[in-house]
Amino acid sequence: GFAKVDHHRKKRQGFPEVIFGEGKEASHIIDISRAMLSKGDNVFITRMEKGKADAVMSALPAFQYDEISKTLFMKNKAFEQKFNDYIAIVCAGTSDLPVAEEAAKTAEACGVEVRRFYDVGVAGIHRLFAHIDEIREATVSVVIAGMEGALPSVVGGLVSHPIIAVPTSVGYGANFNGLSALLTMLNSCASGISVVNIDNGFGGGYNAVLIHQIANRST
Amino acid sequence: GFAKVDHHRKKRQGFPEVIFGEGKEASHIIDISRAMLSKGDNVFITRMEKGKADAVMSALPAFQYDEISKTLFMKNKAFEQKFNDYIAIVCAGTSDLPVAEEAAKTAEACGVEVRRFYDVGVAGIHRLFAHIDEIREATVSVVIAGMEGALPSVVGGLVSHPIIAVPTSVGYGANFNGLSALLTMLNSCASGISVVNIDNGFGGGYNAVLIHQIANRST
Amino acid sequence: GFAKVDHHRKKRQGFPEVIFGEGKEASHIIDISRAMLSKGDNVFITRMEKGKADAVMSALPAFQYDEISKTLFMKNKAFEQKFNDYIAIVCAGTSDLPVAEEAAKTAEACGVEVRRFYDVGVAGIHRLFAHIDEIREATVSVVIAGMEGALPSVVGGLVSHPIIAVPTSVGYGANFNGLSALLTMLNSCASGISVVNIDNGFGGGYNAVLIHQIANRST
Amino acid sequence: GFAKVDHHRKKRQGFPEVIFGEGKEASHIIDISRAMLSKGDNVFITRMEKGKADAVMSALPAFQYDEISKTLFMKNKAFEQKFNDYIAIVCAGTSDLPVAEEAAKTAEACGVEVRRFYDVGVAGIHRLFAHIDEIREATVSVVIAGMEGALPSVVGGLVSHPIIAVPTSVGYGANFNGLSALLTMLNSCASGISVVNIDNGFGGGYNAVLIHQIANRST
Amino acid sequence: GFAKVDHHRKKRQGFPEVIFGEGKEASHIIDISRAMLSKGDNVFITRMEKGKADAVMSALPAFQYDEISKTLFMKNKAFEQKFNDYIAIVCAGTSDLPVAEEAAKTAEACGVEVRRFYDVGVAGIHRLFAHIDEIREATVSVVIAGMEGALPSVVGGLVSHPIIAVPTSVGYGANFNGLSALLTMLNSCASGISVVNIDNGFGGGYNAVLIHQIANRST
Amino acid sequence: GFAKVDHHRKKRQGFPEVIFGEGKEASHIIDISRAMLSKGDNVFITRMEKGKADAVMSALPAFQYDEISKTLFMKNKAFEQKFNDYIAIVCAGTSDLPVAEEAAKTAEACGVEVRRFYDVGVAGIHRLFAHIDEIREATVSVVIAGMEGALPSVVGGLVSHPIIAVPTSVGYGANFNGLSALLTMLNSCASGISVVNIDNGFGGGYNAVLIHQIANRST
Amino acid sequence: GFAKVDHHRKKRQGFPEVIFGEGKEASHIIDISRAMLSKGDNVFITRMEKGKADAVMSALPAFQYDEISKTLFMKNKAFEQKFNDYIAIVCAGTSDLPVAEEAAKTAEACGVEVRRFYDVGVAGIHRLFAHIDEIREATVSVVIAGMEGALPSVVGGLVSHPIIAVPTSVGYGANFNGLSALLTMLNSCASGISVVNIDNGFGGGYNAVLIHQIANRST
Amino acid sequence: GFAKVDHHRKKRQGFPEVIFGEGKEASHIIDISRAMLSKGDNVFITRMEKGKADAVMSALPAFQYDEISKTLFMKNKAFEQKFNDYIAIVCAGTSDLPVAEEAAKTAEACGVEVRRFYDVGVAGIHRLFAHIDEIREATVSVVIAGMEGALPSVVGGLVSHPIIAVPTSVGYGANFNGLSALLTMLNSCASGISVVNIDNGFGGGYNAVLIHQIANRST
Ligand SMILES: Nc1ncnc2c1ncn2[C@@H]1O[C@H](COP(=O)(O)O)[C@@H](O)[C@H]1O
Ligand SMILES: Nc1ncnc2c1ncn2[C@@H]1O[C@H](COP(=O)(O)O)[C@@H](O)[C@H]1O
Ligand SMILES: Nc1ncnc2c1ncn2[C@@H]1O[C@H](COP(=O)(O)O)[C@@H](O)[C@H]1O
Ligand SMILES: Nc1ncnc2c1ncn2[C@@H]1O[C@H](COP(=O)(O)O)[C@@H](O)[C@H]1O
Ligand SMILES: [Mg+2]
Ligand SMILES: [Mg+2]
Ligand SMILES: [Mg+2]
Ligand SMILES: [Mg+2]
Ligand SMILES: [Mg+2]
Ligand SMILES: [Mg+2]
Ligand SMILES: [Mg+2]
Ligand SMILES: [Mg+2]
Repeated sequence: GFAKVDHHRKKRQGFPEVIFGEGKEASHIIDISRAMLSKGDNVFITRMEKGKADAVMSALPAFQYDEISKTLFMKNKAFEQKFNDYIAIVCAGTSDLPVAEEAAKTAEACGVEVRRFYDVGVAGIHRLFAHIDEIREATVSVVIAGMEGALPSVVGGLVSHPIIAVPTSVGYGANFNGLSALLTMLNSCASGISVVNIDNGFGGGYNAVLIHQIANRST
Repeated sequence: GFAKVDHHRKKRQGFPEVIFGEGKEASHIIDISRAMLSKGDNVFITRMEKGKADAVMSALPAFQYDEISKTLFMKNKAFEQKFNDYIAIVCAGTSDLPVAEEAAKTAEACGVEVRRFYDVGVAGIHRLFAHIDEIREATVSVVIAGMEGALPSVVGGLVSHPIIAVPTSVGYGANFNGLSALLTMLNSCASGISVVNIDNGFGGGYNAVLIHQIANRST
Repeated sequence: GFAKVDHHRKKRQGFPEVIFGEGKEASHIIDISRAMLSKGDNVFITRMEKGKADAVMSALPAFQYDEISKTLFMKNKAFEQKFNDYIAIVCAGTSDLPVAEEAAKTAEACGVEVRRFYDVGVAGIHRLFAHIDEIREATVSVVIAGMEGALPSVVGGLVSHPIIAVPTSVGYGANFNGLSALLTMLNSCASGISVVNIDNGFGGGYNAVLIHQIANRST
Repeated sequence: GFAKVDHHRKKRQGFPEVIFGEGKEASHIIDISRAMLSKGDNVFITRMEKGKADAVMSALPAFQYDEISKTLFMKNKAFEQKFNDYIAIVCAGTSDLPVAEEAAKTAEACGVEVRRFYDVGVAGIHRLFAHIDEIREATVSVVIAGMEGALPSVVGGLVSHPIIAVPTSVGYGANFNGLSALLTMLNSCASGISVVNIDNGFGGGYNAVLIHQIANRST
Repeated sequence: GFAKVDHHRKKRQGFPEVIFGEGKEASHIIDISRAMLSKGDNVFITRMEKGKADAVMSALPAFQYDEISKTLFMKNKAFEQKFNDYIAIVCAGTSDLPVAEEAAKTAEACGVEVRRFYDVGVAGIHRLFAHIDEIREATVSVVIAGMEGALPSVVGGLVSHPIIAVPTSVGYGANFNGLSALLTMLNSCASGISVVNIDNGFGGGYNAVLIHQIANRST
Repeated sequence: GFAKVDHHRKKRQGFPEVIFGEGKEASHIIDISRAMLSKGDNVFITRMEKGKADAVMSALPAFQYDEISKTLFMKNKAFEQKFNDYIAIVCAGTSDLPVAEEAAKTAEACGVEVRRFYDVGVAGIHRLFAHIDEIREATVSVVIAGMEGALPSVVGGLVSHPIIAVPTSVGYGANFNGLSALLTMLNSCASGISVVNIDNGFGGGYNAVLIHQIANRST
Repeated sequence: GFAKVDHHRKKRQGFPEVIFGEGKEASHIIDISRAMLSKGDNVFITRMEKGKADAVMSALPAFQYDEISKTLFMKNKAFEQKFNDYIAIVCAGTSDLPVAEEAAKTAEACGVEVRRFYDVGVAGIHRLFAHIDEIREATVSVVIAGMEGALPSVVGGLVSHPIIAVPTSVGYGANFNGLSALLTMLNSCASGISVVNIDNGFGGGYNAVLIHQIANRST
Repeated sequence: GFAKVDHHRKKRQGFPEVIFGEGKEASHIIDISRAMLSKGDNVFITRMEKGKADAVMSALPAFQYDEISKTLFMKNKAFEQKFNDYIAIVCAGTSDLPVAEEAAKTAEACGVEVRRFYDVGVAGIHRLFAHIDEIREATVSVVIAGMEGALPSVVGGLVSHPIIAVPTSVGYGANFNGLSALLTMLNSCASGISVVNIDNGFGGGYNAVLIHQIANRST
């Protein structure tokens, strides 16, 4: 087939093989997955609509599907890493949940503990404050928000670890499919914030895992 | 001259005559001002660079110039209104000051008390909380912010009166001259927020005055 | 569940609990509604397609559905407020009706009288003039328009109370889903106009209610 | 030189030779003008800053410079056309004057009568109504507006002849250099309006002249 | 119902009543049509998908549907106008036909003769030249083009009457739903071109009719 | 210094070393040039304002400056190539000349003959036809246009060799600094056209030279 | 029918007749194809969804359909050309395959050999290096990429022949339907790259064929 | 003065006080700096044009100015941190140097070692490979690029630590002041990349320092 699977990269990083499911046909995904499984790798697949996930699972029943994050995971070997710390996944509204869970599942597929702080958007900021101490103790935060996307700025002013900000396309009108939240996050006057693509929950989780891994390199 | 001064509108509203100074020549402004003065009106002029303001003041020395807001004001009669309440002008950073002061001077030129809460941006949110009770007691708030423009969303979640949000063009890069803050404010998930044009401090102040006036109509 | 219902906010404002229905599943909405009902609150839900509304009403038959505004309302206690004045809802074309009615129903759910002035767009301006005196007597106007969005500018020049302008996505071609009307309203040369997001009828109605409430605070 | 002057086009249309002055050097303009003069043509030049115009006039003193429209005109032969009717040039604010005058001077350079209706913007619509009958009697109107650009929509609903709408770059913030007015005009719900480029006063005047010429073809 | 039909406007212009069908329900259209018919007016409806047109015709069988332009027409009285001249409808590609025909049917519904010059796009310019003399003899041209939208510029350099340019949304990729053609037409270096909204065939035809009417006012 | 000069690339292609002068200081350019000269290479520098060019030439007087294209060239060895054919440089208006000449000088600095066809824009298409046979005989054309950028579409329909289209930023208003011409060219319905960046005369010339070189590889 | 088939163009170029299938009905395509077949031409049709292709093939069974590129081809006469060299089709990811194959099939329909280098995107650059020597030997490369679109820049630095870059709309979020890849390619700092429209595989292949043809003109 | 200095934040992070110099007057900066110095803090100021920097240094001569990064630094106490590792600053072209150095100086002002890898852009990728092993050994990389901004994608595929990507506004034409590079980086198909605002060298350096600090927290 066309896709030249890159086993080299996985080895460099100690993570599962990741497949971006969107735009790939089920049969194609099954082929790639089998190639990976034959090496004993864990396999993690994102952007899988339920129908396509079912088709893959009927061929490879060891996959587990998560409907909110639309991810598939198959665990073929134990996680190598052992850490005492965690990543905070902070999220503005209930509509941002699919993106937040894509981030969370990504981290968990890499064997990293996550703690979820959901529905703590800036329009009711007391909800954030109720959890701020536990967020502060995380190694790194992934902060997800749609509509105006202001949450990373507020969190960024309250914690001193790095923040990966993930804009979502949740909103309407002059939201322009997430452009509003994206610009907000790029222009944040809080420092310590970097940004990934709109709805890129995977990118948020993956960057957090890389930072987390460095933080634990000598333990 | 070309400009047909609209005395009718002033009468409807009990406010000073307002001139938008940008793009008008000093001589033209002097002519319009004289026409207004001859009726005994108060006159308020916005967007006046210092040089042009000086030229106007050498002809009409009763004008007072404010360098930060770039406004000229001439008071020819006492304010008719007497209120016990005030407008809160809330502002994120020191760079937003010219816009905040344009709003404040607009309100003061209409005889309304303003209270200033400056440099209380969301990246250090404890600065806002130090003043939140006094902001809450205002009739209406004008909230000014550049860069990511998140401040109105946070204030909007903490107060129950109407908020006029003013985006500023302060920022750089993907800020696109205030577009970022504008979109943030239009997409705010806090309710009770309406928005005026980028850098439109006058609009912010004027809308607040209209609301304030209604709030005091029967007193 | 994830959504932490904010009873505090309601108390601050004396209004019904508001749920943004878009993107929430019927079962989720039923859960939130029940939590609110148990406190005796009035409940108002926006952005409900008919099918989803039917599903909610079969569980909670006390809800009333309005098909044009796509809103659900359940009245569990009498309105506290008693006013003699009204909000004007002014609307350019028949296609803007869903947004206009979202604004109107929002105000009515807060116990405020509204008067409707529909199909009075600027291309036939005599239609507006036929009603202008009754519009002028309102406390505040919500002016809704799509396509070129010029109506708030014209109304703004004729009334002296505050105007909340609501751009709609009605139009085609270089309308760009409401961007044209949004920019028109932000750039209005009439003063006393502030703007909410494209198609945000709720925002238009809610801001008007806040202003109306202030105008009646001492009565 | 490089520019191959197109005498053919002029003959087709019976108008002066027109030169777009922007970006051309004075010496280049003098060369082109001389070539035209040698044929006895009238010559009309747009977009001439004063300094460059002075340089051209010191070589060709028969040119007349108009400072507001920034145009140069030299009349070498009498106008062929004789009409009883006129073009209306309608303009929203005093800042739009340079564009309005570019349109007016263009028409006058073609020997057509124009009537000016300036400073009649929609925020004070009674100013327009004071002149509407005289505007209605025109063969065609050129309607110029910046900021929100709503004037052509209103005029379009009141007259039954064709309207050429000219957006100007007057404004600030979310005006985006005239984009706001351009979109407004393209999306007008009044029919009978067509649009030229931002600040294209020449285009507005020239299209009106073409229509006017057709209207008088048999007289 | 809500729509206040504007009989006054029709009288001013001697044309059929025009209804914009998009977004209106069949029953609503039938109501408006009946109101118009009761006055003996001709009725012309644009943007009617076949299903909705069928529903209207089963109530009002005198309507005639044209599937390409998606227009309905009902002729209740003879055209008042009698002219010897015609409007040229010039069109770049076969995909632009629906817009071209919307323009043509609009003109014909006003009793004006049109001549069609289709599939004469600039990439094979000899096709245009084969017809250029007949196009030149028209009173006014409506030139329709999608993709790069260059046709009006070329025609504009070859004819001396006014051109109404209509950009279409035909294209893909960086075409951005007609934005490319729209910008091309607004920036044309040929003079005598004015532009209507993307896909606005009605606007193209209607402006041409207004010009045509003026050209024939005394006959 | 920082810039690691890439002699390898030059050897691969047999062309002069090319330096992009914009944003580099004169002293930096002199250093790079000297490094190249020491190898006996020809050196070609683009985007050099006159002042900076003079500074470079006072250190390295063998450079020749061309004021229109703003390029510097120093010939240190004879051209290796000998061809019988030529590149056509076709250009719409006199304002596009700097970009057209940047393309032409680039090709000449590579030892390739160019023929210039300037001021042949589509609004007066007979000017193009006067030269079309000589353009057709070229190996490849570089077609440069600003404003609406329609010229490549027309030329593309008349010749059968490849066309490199170069949009320029010449224009105003809704031209958006060349975006209009860029989109036009990308959306051209003529085939055989590919596009380089706005104002990228160098890119136009360089791509043409690469094609020309392939066309002559065996001679 | 409306489409005036341009046999002249084919003769100029020695290639099959090409039909752009998108937006054309099957019956229309059959008519055009028959007209071409009657002259003995090869016929190549792009943008054909399977259903429409089946309809065409049931009338004209000599057509061959390729499902990935969505192209139809009918060979009625032998290719005139005989070359020893080839075009490289280089492609970043498996999702770009439909566009890459549209380019490849276009070239093959013109009788030119292509070699495919697929799934060699920049995020795993060793995959590109494994094939770089064979890419270097091509006459010209078509380089296709979505998402960030960086592949042409990297290839451009490694080969010395011309590159036609084709951005695809593959991606999500701030990709804006291919705008990201388009801008990347237009701004490439590698020289020797020109760009066609987003997803325009046909344009990529066709431009490469024109260059290839010139390269072989004397053999 | 207005600015309420936030000593709390500094304590949380162990870094110098940072002042954003742009838009602040020299006297204002001197006041803030003095307040910080009185606490014994190190002070780091970004975006200081030479003239303003000189004015600050004449009052506070202990500041050191770096002309390329336009930063001021004053060291009042020793760095608390002691690490054995470093941050890689990787940069595409010499024009990106000011942004790269803003990142580098930011990290050095926090007491972190940086290694510079400059002028290694993707158009000559062998230059990057010469250094790739030393880049791989860094804890985190800051990768800066303008024009097409492809460098982070390539580096991201070669290293397994986190990358902070900084787009610069270097470029012209369809670069749109850095938008092209920004979109490229947000859409990167390499994982492990997050992005800060255009030209935000400070943000790049600061995020890298936060990650570096976590990586060294237990040493
Ligand atoms: N149509 C609407 N447009 C914008 N905001 C709305 C709308 N309807 C409700 N809201 C806001 O959404 C909030 C509820 O959001 P949620 O917590 O998602 O139900 C309410 O407090 C309102 O402020
Ligand atoms: N296809 C069309 N595009 C734009 N405007 C149209 C179109 N068809 C009709 N109209 C205009 O829409 C008006 C009728 O709108 P309505 O009152 O919504 O039926 C008519 O007077 C026309 O000016
Ligand atoms: N996929 C494609 N993308 C862009 N242009 C195409 C494509 N396929 C065919 N064409 C062009 O479209 C022309 C045919 O257009 P038409 O006359 O509408 O069939 C051909 O001459 C090609 O230049
Ligand atoms: N070059 C820069 N770009 C973006 N943010 C900066 C820059 N330099 C400083 N900052 C941030 O701006 C804050 C200081 O802003 P201010 O209070 O205006 O001095 C610092 O805490 C930094 O987070
Ligand atoms: Mg922080
Ligand atoms: Mg609130
Ligand atoms: Mg008003
Ligand atoms: Mg009209
Ligand atoms: Mg013409
Ligand atoms: Mg061709
Ligand atoms: Mg190359
Ligand atoms: Mg990596």
